[in-house]
Amino acid sequence: MAQLAQPVRGMRDILPPQGELRRRVANAILDIYARYGFELIETPALEALEVLLGSGGGENEKLVFKILKRGERLDEELSRGGELSDAGLRFDLTVPLARFVANHLNDLPMPFKVAHMASVWRGERPARGRFREFVQCDIDIVGEPSAAAEVELCSATLDALSGVGVQGCTVKLNDRRLLRAVVEKYLGPLEDPTPVYIELDKLERDGPSAVRRYLDGYDAAGVEGLLEWLEQGDIDAAPPETSEALKATLRSLADQGYAAEFDAALVRGIGYYTGQIFEVRRPDIGYSLAGGGRYDGMTARFGAPALAMCGFSIGFERVCDLVDPALFGRGQHRVAVTCANEDELMRSLAAARARRARDPGTVFNVVRRARNARKQQEDLTKLGYSEVLDGKEFGRQ
Amino acid sequence: MAQLAQPVRGMRDILPPQGELRRRVANAILDIYARYGFELIETPALEALEVLLGSGGGENEKLVFKILKRGERLDEELSRGGELSDAGLRFDLTVPLARFVANHLNDLPMPFKVAHMASVWRGERPARGRFREFVQCDIDIVGEPSAAAEVELCSATLDALSGVGVQGCTVKLNDRRLLRAVVEKYLGPLEDPTPVYIELDKLERDGPSAVRRYLDGYDAAGVEGLLEWLEQGDIDAAPPETSEALKATLRSLADQGYAAEFDAALVRGIGYYTGQIFEVRRPDIGYSLAGGGRYDGMTARFGAPALAMCGFSIGFERVCDLVDPALFGRGQHRVAVTCANEDELMRSLAAARARRARDPGTVFNVVRRARNARKQQEDLTKLGYSEVLDGKEFGRQ
Repeated sequence: MAQLAQPVRGMRDILPPQGELRRRVANAILDIYARYGFELIETPALEALEVLLGSGGGENEKLVFKILKRGERLDEELSRGGELSDAGLRFDLTVPLARFVANHLNDLPMPFKVAHMASVWRGERPARGRFREFVQCDIDIVGEPSAAAEVELCSATLDALSGVGVQGCTVKLNDRRLLRAVVEKYLGPLEDPTPVYIELDKLERDGPSAVRRYLDGYDAAGVEGLLEWLEQGDIDAAPPETSEALKATLRSLADQGYAAEFDAALVRGIGYYTGQIFEVRRPDIGYSLAGGGRYDGMTARFGAPALAMCGFSIGFERVCDLVDPALFGRGQHRVAVTCANEDELMRSLAAARARRARDPGTVFNVVRRARNARKQQEDLTKLGYSEVLDGKEFGRQ
Repeated sequence: MAQLAQPVRGMRDILPPQGELRRRVANAILDIYARYGFELIETPALEALEVLLGSGGGENEKLVFKILKRGERLDEELSRGGELSDAGLRFDLTVPLARFVANHLNDLPMPFKVAHMASVWRGERPARGRFREFVQCDIDIVGEPSAAAEVELCSATLDALSGVGVQGCTVKLNDRRLLRAVVEKYLGPLEDPTPVYIELDKLERDGPSAVRRYLDGYDAAGVEGLLEWLEQGDIDAAPPETSEALKATLRSLADQGYAAEFDAALVRGIGYYTGQIFEVRRPDIGYSLAGGGRYDGMTARFGAPALAMCGFSIGFERVCDLVDPALFGRGQHRVAVTCANEDELMRSLAAARARRARDPGTVFNVVRRARNARKQQEDLTKLGYSEVLDGKEFGRQ
């Protein structure tokens, strides 16, 4: 196939019947979130670089797809060696949400429970199962300072996953305040521990020797102690208030019958978290299905008061990969009508329309008979058509 | 509000309850298309510039948001004055579809009836009601050369519009082959008439004196004759085969009870059309709700055989503006539970979860009681909550 016909590097096309499956899974998740009272919003794909890059988005910052200025503005910048871009594609939905909340504070209910589902873009090295464009499905609670926010987000996320048939999930929890106390105990006081978190986050993927290398600018004995601590952990190493809140989240989730556990090695490679962090894991899968945490005060970056904020994001593609397509069958009787010529097509189109009106539960797909009728029949069967009628007859109705 | 909190110029945030309304309208349209047998696909937001700009997209080409190359690749281009971008955001869904079909030809049923709904981006001057990011909802038929494609696309599009309560629409039709014959009759032979179409397309918006000015490089008497012709038109000025096909489309739509009429002045400002073109209008609105046409052979640009292609695109925002929100009510009993403190919240979250399981038709929204309880009550009423319960009681269940 010609090079020009390919999608851009690291991105992909979604073919039938996967497109319809994705729509159904997305709606099932959003329906569950709606029943929890999360209100759906949208934000633009593009944000000002000042919004995106002032965000402490960790490694994401390097990965932003920037938009080239246009026309005279570009010519001017090129002639004086200035900035070629002032906007980029969002790399997550959290930073845009904080901007959104700051922008519309007076028009939002408060506390604000919000759902947000859309594509994000990251210029990462493409790899098997990792794409540069992917969909996140986020819920966030703005204005709730207590662990009730964490509990509800974990509860709704696990319910959404089991609602689409992804069972057997566990939510793992940790707290950035606990991590910070431990990191500073072993490595000494740090102005910003984010670079350490970013490397520690690679522990599972790359193993301890790699992480030792990544952290070779730090005291070696300290790094060793830190890595050892992460293996065992101790929820009480945190300031008492932090430990109590973490225990309250775990207890409430356990009381409701969820699988929830403390995970000292859970770090997450994003700079903006300020409190509890969490991920959804399933024992048979080597990556998380959802991730999130508390990021209090991000609204203050955008000129608004520093509000309590906490969110949980489902990796939509990862969930779609686990979904049983049979659970999202189209559930409709599907009838194809194949026609030999334009006259049969015209008659069958009119007849199909009348049949659809009489029979709202049935799909009627009128289409010209292909030269390779057998391949067409197979294709139609694959697309769920249980009946294939002859347009000559059908069009006479 | 701080500048930094604003969306980028020409783009916008969607607040509740509009986000949920948009989801419901989108699903209603896609459900109707599914009943016609159109299969949903997705393509990436980014395409190679070679894909986008080799497309004869007319004025859209100037309006592409280009993606800046990154890292070493950018440094290299800057140092040698090379191309700073090789990819951009799609400005429509038609060009990406042609690439998609060329790429997956062997994996698609043929003829291929396809639905495609997504954001597109155009760097146009922002104006009232015109945004730089907007959603198109397209259906296309690939591999059907006859007017049966046009008929089915017009039928499905008008059914989708009336299905979401947008009644009283008319489809206006013309044919690029007719237009070309007329343009060349008045202006003489042209290698590419696209620049003329782009100016003629502004007739309704800017009026005839403006269009005379836009076309001042052409013979003035010829332009005058052309403008006069567009006012009256004559379907038989086309080559006989073209006139017959246009009449067949009109007849078939009229037979099915649709309002469909020939419109000599319908031009559309896009270069890639090769045959019939069409728009949906409603008499009370000064712009089209949907537009499309035949663009046979676009697949050949991407190294595939030149397939018959025809499509119709709904402007999603324009339709949402006309929809009656009452028709897309959430149809659910909505209960809010307001809580005074963390303890009430934790108990109420668990109680709400049990209630949702028992009563799948009801929304239970647990939230902390705001300091301004009256404003909160008003906000909850606006969001459709008919019952507001006290978490102290509710959490005891």
